[in-house]
Amino acid sequence: MDLLHFEDFPVGEIADYGAADVTVEAIKDFAREFDPQVFHLDDAAARATMTGGLIASGWHVAAMLMRMSCDHFLNRSTCQGAPGIEEISWVKPVRPGDRLGVRRTTLSARPSKSRPEIGLVEFQFEVINQSDEVVMAQRGTILFKRRAASSEAKR
Amino acid sequence: MDLLHFEDFPVGEIADYGAADVTVEAIKDFAREFDPQVFHLDDAAARATMTGGLIASGWHVAAMLMRMSCDHFLNRSTCQGAPGIEEISWVKPVRPGDRLGVRRTTLSARPSKSRPEIGLVEFQFEVINQSDEVVMAQRGTILFKRRAASSEAKR
Repeated sequence: MDLLHFEDFPVGEIADYGAADVTVEAIKDFAREFDPQVFHLDDAAARATMTGGLIASGWHVAAMLMRMSCDHFLNRSTCQGAPGIEEISWVKPVRPGDRLGVRRTTLSARPSKSRPEIGLVEFQFEVINQSDEVVMAQRGTILFKRRAASSEAKR
Repeated sequence: MDLLHFEDFPVGEIADYGAADVTVEAIKDFAREFDPQVFHLDDAAARATMTGGLIASGWHVAAMLMRMSCDHFLNRSTCQGAPGIEEISWVKPVRPGDRLGVRRTTLSARPSKSRPEIGLVEFQFEVINQSDEVVMAQRGTILFKRRAASSEAKR
């Protein structure tokens, strides 16, 4: 299998992928374990809050984005992890019945100074619902092996 | 119950809380659902990667931080949600057997311009392991009701 390397993420490229259905059960399961606030757990009580009904935890949406990214490209890549996230914006609520997808834009790409076999790719990820609304935006950097470096290593 | 309001988070305050034990099962459960990369799923295979063994997904660590924050203060507060996160840094790997806690520092606090009944509090969260090492740092803003505004509403 030919894995995706640093060179396979040209700056400016836009990729659309993923289709994750948001269910009441998944929202509550995540919330019970990681974010037990009332607007993620109890629909009736949530209606009395500023959310106007049950919404998914923002961390659940971030985790769903990660899963869609693994399925679409990370798990067929030379991903070497991620140092961090530069920004997350929770723009709109995610509710039961929503179907989420991802728009990924490659913002920048550069070889690592300290580890020349590695390259850093900065992505903008937008999670988009069935009404084409951005519900979450995230900017972060992922490390990949460089193809040239891999070829040299094989010699 | 007297809920925590905007005024209860003075700038400069440091709070230490939480004790979350990281297990192999929890690492793999999270990874199977949200981040199925080999270094989160398979200990033997992970040893052959740059991680040198099984490590928790960074999103799992973020979710564990959220749970500790809910248990310690958010679920006894007037939390009105969070617009986003300004930065996440995954500084060190989190491994099975680690015990995680949180150090929360209040960086800034200001009333909302558009919604005077609300205040914005900016926190630095550091997740710290049993060796006093910071494994994840996160900076973000949380919205709370202002106490003055609540008193006025009750009149």
